[in-house]
Amino acid sequence: MKLAGVSLIAGQPAGKTGAEFRAINPASSELLNPPFFSATSDDVDRAARAAHDAFLAWRNHSGRERARLLRSIADGLDAATAELVSRARLETALPEARLQGETKRTSNQFRHFAETLEEGSWVAARIDTALPDRKPLPRPDLRSMLQPLGPIAVFGASNFPLAFSVAGGDTASALAAGNSVVVKAHPAHPGTSELAARVILDSVRSCGAPEGLFSLLFDAGFHAGQSLVQHPRIAAVAFTGSSNGGRALMDLAAQRPHPVPCFAEMGSTNPVFVLSGALRKQGNGIAAGLFGSFTLGAGQFCTKPGIVFLPNQAETEPLLAELRRLTAESPAYTLLTPGIAATYRRSIEDRRSRRAVEMRTSAPADATCAATAALLETEIETFLNYPELSEEIFGPTSLIVRYSERPAMMRAAEELEGHLTATILGSDEDLAEHRDLIAVLERKVGRVLFNGFPTGLEVCDAVVHGGPYPASSDSRFTAVGSRAILRFARPVCWQGFPEQSLPDELRDTNPLGILRMVNGNMSREPVAG
Amino acid sequence: MKLAGVSLIAGQPAGKTGAEFRAINPASSELLNPPFFSATSDDVDRAARAAHDAFLAWRNHSGRERARLLRSIADGLDAATAELVSRARLETALPEARLQGETKRTSNQFRHFAETLEEGSWVAARIDTALPDRKPLPRPDLRSMLQPLGPIAVFGASNFPLAFSVAGGDTASALAAGNSVVVKAHPAHPGTSELAARVILDSVRSCGAPEGLFSLLFDAGFHAGQSLVQHPRIAAVAFTGSSNGGRALMDLAAQRPHPVPCFAEMGSTNPVFVLSGALRKQGNGIAAGLFGSFTLGAGQFCTKPGIVFLPNQAETEPLLAELRRLTAESPAYTLLTPGIAATYRRSIEDRRSRRAVEMRTSAPADATCAATAALLETEIETFLNYPELSEEIFGPTSLIVRYSERPAMMRAAEELEGHLTATILGSDEDLAEHRDLIAVLERKVGRVLFNGFPTGLEVCDAVVHGGPYPASSDSRFTAVGSRAILRFARPVCWQGFPEQSLPDELRDTNPLGILRMVNGNMSREPVAG
Repeated sequence: MKLAGVSLIAGQPAGKTGAEFRAINPASSELLNPPFFSATSDDVDRAARAAHDAFLAWRNHSGRERARLLRSIADGLDAATAELVSRARLETALPEARLQGETKRTSNQFRHFAETLEEGSWVAARIDTALPDRKPLPRPDLRSMLQPLGPIAVFGASNFPLAFSVAGGDTASALAAGNSVVVKAHPAHPGTSELAARVILDSVRSCGAPEGLFSLLFDAGFHAGQSLVQHPRIAAVAFTGSSNGGRALMDLAAQRPHPVPCFAEMGSTNPVFVLSGALRKQGNGIAAGLFGSFTLGAGQFCTKPGIVFLPNQAETEPLLAELRRLTAESPAYTLLTPGIAATYRRSIEDRRSRRAVEMRTSAPADATCAATAALLETEIETFLNYPELSEEIFGPTSLIVRYSERPAMMRAAEELEGHLTATILGSDEDLAEHRDLIAVLERKVGRVLFNGFPTGLEVCDAVVHGGPYPASSDSRFTAVGSRAILRFARPVCWQGFPEQSLPDELRDTNPLGILRMVNGNMSREPVAG
Repeated sequence: MKLAGVSLIAGQPAGKTGAEFRAINPASSELLNPPFFSATSDDVDRAARAAHDAFLAWRNHSGRERARLLRSIADGLDAATAELVSRARLETALPEARLQGETKRTSNQFRHFAETLEEGSWVAARIDTALPDRKPLPRPDLRSMLQPLGPIAVFGASNFPLAFSVAGGDTASALAAGNSVVVKAHPAHPGTSELAARVILDSVRSCGAPEGLFSLLFDAGFHAGQSLVQHPRIAAVAFTGSSNGGRALMDLAAQRPHPVPCFAEMGSTNPVFVLSGALRKQGNGIAAGLFGSFTLGAGQFCTKPGIVFLPNQAETEPLLAELRRLTAESPAYTLLTPGIAATYRRSIEDRRSRRAVEMRTSAPADATCAATAALLETEIETFLNYPELSEEIFGPTSLIVRYSERPAMMRAAEELEGHLTATILGSDEDLAEHRDLIAVLERKVGRVLFNGFPTGLEVCDAVVHGGPYPASSDSRFTAVGSRAILRFARPVCWQGFPEQSLPDELRDTNPLGILRMVNGNMSREPVAG
């Protein structure tokens, strides 16, 4: 497909009046064709208004109709895999197999939400029937269920050009809940973004949904995104990316005359606690898993394990020796953008300049987007004295923190900020002896792992990809998994309405057969007449 | 019980060093004894820290243990009813029967949340079991459920000295979810606040919970509340009150270095649409219900119907004549505070000064807190031209908006901001003919009513007391009903943990017998081994 290079507003190409930019191939630093054109203020306004109009027309379509749209998008993504992967490969330098897998994950996300809609109980229907004879006052009939919020602004992330971008989990969950979507594409992969948007638009058309249900805006800078978040028609915001970017959007959303929810998933350092029993039993077998996890995707995963707490014991040095060897022998990595690569190098230099942090790296890499893996090592006293050592470095690096005394490790755990994940590598005895540590970690993260690695996030019903600030803007929600739909829905209650005026989900007969709370009891039965 | 007049921090009385203030009897304007003393910055800090420590000690107690605490508080409130009502009567001038009913509602709220905990399924447990043989990658075992957030700051409201105050729904739902609570008491009813706090503290002690689980702070001004919201140990905020107050706290919560959720329920004007068929069939029979609803509690309900849209037809003048008569003959009302009374008079004067708004009032009332009922009348063209006419006036008044053309009424509906409720009075034919109106209202409010009045909020599972901004800070939550607990809980996921390290709710055997989502299916069965 020939790329148009312009924003797509309610199915129509925007003009080429905004600032021009191009994607860069991180592997070769060459500029890619075609040029892309940033959205103007007028484009943003038209996209938001079209999203509002489409929302009004679409919001009362049934969950099953929405599921049909999601399945159509999933099929469209599968059909476009070769084209998506080929362009994404140019724009991100991520390996083909990874991009193949990510495309499948992206289409499966739509299918997973389609299943959620087809089953239908996610709307959390609740019915309290009238009690006309109750004393001192009768009870009216009250029925409630979740309803969509309105147009959702979605910001694509750089590190997953498919699964967390234009057709990613934010778009899928926002559409699933019955909202319309305006995506601000990440400028690092505009071609992949346009291709994914065209798949979505084709499905919107073929399913007879209003074209304003989905729009895509390009911008090499910040103006379009900021205008979008501030637009009065936008009802909520979803973002995946850096702390600075996420906080800026949170602030914009909160400062609006009418504030709107902003769910920002801003990454974290994902601490790993290697406990004594695991070290004794698995020894330096742990090294390969750990190294693989912190260098996966060139270390550009939100869930990359960036801090590893390691007790000093007989097996510690051999494990470290193996980690150092793996690091020293690793090839150079290609990061996603020149900006990410520059920040990575600056952060590594900053750590290198600290006397108390030792570093092992592979051979230096000097292409614009190239990066060498870096293993940082320090003692827990240094870690506790320099809180900045716990800040995320996006790229193939991790910080080993050695400790001799358990109280120091516990203090470090207590002082952790919010993270997406925390991991314990341990024996069953370790677990039993570290209930206090687990209790601390449960308060700090969205997902706590035992004997696994935090990268390789499973998209399912039970997963939580979020956590206390600064991992996310609101720990009550998740960006991944079927719970993610709850970010974009709100309960509405109908009081005293006759059966025929109620949504299907709330009718006595329960025509959809969904699970509902009826007079306090969960049931799929019709309301007893 | 003798009132101490000081903040209660983890069960201990604070000093009398802060600014002194007294409650006022709104009926007589006399100052009430004893004096109360504002919390100092140090008091706020101690309360927040104690709440954090108590949260750590209490958070892993079971839902059934928490239910026992809630039931003990409910019983304590019932036992203290005479004392609570007697003091509240002095501090609010609300009628005794109303305060009796409100106390019962308050204790029943605790019992309702206790039932929610005893049943146990509210934690939304989800289990996706391991698929070790899945290709291309195995699936790990993932299990998630809702967990408490931490110390919650609760701001008592003036208009419900029991049900939306110290022992109100915010405190009940925050404790139910497993959090600790620090209440900033409303300064208009400090004695009632202290009595309610003592009931809670007695139960905290008798149930063996840590005393820091609940603290009460007094302040005649804003300092203690602001410091509380900004305190790093506070994990979320709940507020019921004015738009200005709510927005100020929302902004403080959002501007923290680590932002926290702030649920503010800020009231609204609760539009009522009297449709043609209802007017024809019920005629001026509607008047008594409407007048009763907008003067209930002296018009100081968040759900007071403050705007009534009325079509011009044969029955309109008789209905208005009856409303004018009821208004003119009504006795004077006593408002809650001199400040509320002054604002009410100023707002009424503002409306009176507008040429296009007619007003009928009862005889003038001149005591400090007295207010005359006021029926305002205007045409829809005026209403559409002056958006400020739709702003809430707290007190016994409502604005009748007459219209001749349905498009003008629809335009007014479209232009409504977020409200807690919207009401349709109509025949079944009206409903069928006004699907477009209902569709608009569903987007604007938390609760839409048919042939009822919005005051007299039912506390139940299905109710929603919230709505789009400015009715509340976040339309995804409700302040009332069992869904209110969701404001103060977040999902946490355990990946790969052995059975014995998981919370009871997530164990294979399902020892609590709760409803869970297991591999996509809702079930109370154990996980198949």
